[in-house]
Amino acid sequence: MDKAQQDALKKAAGIEAAKLVEDGMIAGLGTGSTVRFLVDELGRRVQEEGLHFTGVTTSRRTQEQAEGYGIRIVDVDDVDHIDVTIDGADEVDKDFNGIKGGGAALLWEKIVATNSNRIVWIVDESKVVDTIGAFPLPVEVIPFGAGHVIKRFEDRGYKPVLRKDADGREVRTDESNYVVDLHLERIDHPQDLAEDLIRTVGVVEHGLFLNMVDTVIVGDPHGPRVMTNSNK
Amino acid sequence: MDKAQQDALKKAAGIEAAKLVEDGMIAGLGTGSTVRFLVDELGRRVQEEGLHFTGVTTSRRTQEQAEGYGIRIVDVDDVDHIDVTIDGADEVDKDFNGIKGGGAALLWEKIVATNSNRIVWIVDESKVVDTIGAFPLPVEVIPFGAGHVIKRFEDRGYKPVLRKDADGREVRTDESNYVVDLHLERIDHPQDLAEDLIRTVGVVEHGLFLNMVDTVIVGDPHGPRVMTNSNK
Repeated sequence: MDKAQQDALKKAAGIEAAKLVEDGMIAGLGTGSTVRFLVDELGRRVQEEGLHFTGVTTSRRTQEQAEGYGIRIVDVDDVDHIDVTIDGADEVDKDFNGIKGGGAALLWEKIVATNSNRIVWIVDESKVVDTIGAFPLPVEVIPFGAGHVIKRFEDRGYKPVLRKDADGREVRTDESNYVVDLHLERIDHPQDLAEDLIRTVGVVEHGLFLNMVDTVIVGDPHGPRVMTNSNK
Repeated sequence: MDKAQQDALKKAAGIEAAKLVEDGMIAGLGTGSTVRFLVDELGRRVQEEGLHFTGVTTSRRTQEQAEGYGIRIVDVDDVDHIDVTIDGADEVDKDFNGIKGGGAALLWEKIVATNSNRIVWIVDESKVVDTIGAFPLPVEVIPFGAGHVIKRFEDRGYKPVLRKDADGREVRTDESNYVVDLHLERIDHPQDLAEDLIRTVGVVEHGLFLNMVDTVIVGDPHGPRVMTNSNK
């Protein structure tokens, strides 16, 4: 599949998901290339159909895109709940375990998700996998002492790589932390791994989103396909 | 006990603990009023006795004080281990469970402690308690979404208070996060509480240091008393 075909699937999933946002709702808006199409469609509905809703964003990038369409964006602490959050994912398996954070916004994404009544992910079909882990798992780490955290990950066989930009500088999250990507290839016991990571002093959050999502909308060449999580 | 008497006990504990630092060691230096006396004594030994050691600090305050005595301070990531870390504590019980973070440096303190072969706390006798929790438990929280974390703590009966300075502004840690103090009065199940806090999305770290300390040196009117943890 070339990039144009993949973009067409992402766009179809984004348009389908935009239908979930109704007048008066508070909607969480994620981050990433698929979410861009979602926000474009929501912007079109606001401008052409007079849709009124309030958005909460998980990154400055999405906030700027949404405000460009005149969508009202508020801080997560200015609302007492979020009706539905729509976000992308880097991988998701049949048990609704996913990896997020390729775009380094995993912490805000997880905070918004935690405060949402319903979570929807939009992905192209390449993101639906049998076992997660081929996508490197992002972990947000406090810079102070990060070398020791990376050493600990190496000792446990997690194959950590400190994420750097094209100029060789450490990537910083919106909270000024580092991102360490774990090249695990496959994660057979995601719950155990999540426990180990969250107990590691210096780790702020990790990109494992385990059984958190309610609905996955998959961009498929035959039209958007919906996976519903009945075990949450 | 008045402040002058309490300071005398803190100073006695600090001087006793300074004896644990030997030539060539890498020593972690904590934060707080008792640690100030420790660093004063180490500075005296460096200048009068020619003691040579390398320090790793847990706050900018301690770093400035130590460097003022000519003590060589390096970053925690510049050493592969720490021989001994000496720090204060806000409370400690007979099972060597403690609360730290009154000074808002709990995250760096925990990171340094985690990388130390031996951990020593210096306290005056008022800090040794039957049950921890009378001292408000500090929790370091990401500002994004902090209102929801505080709401969650309220729902669980943790009596959270966002820490503010004399001007009414939120106190920020060295990592620019908030500190939320939990006014629990007594913590009967510290392990369960620690588990709950660390799983809460938005929590970076908490001030419970459970069975981490090896030795507690208590400033006592009859002379420094040593409590040794044999269950670690």
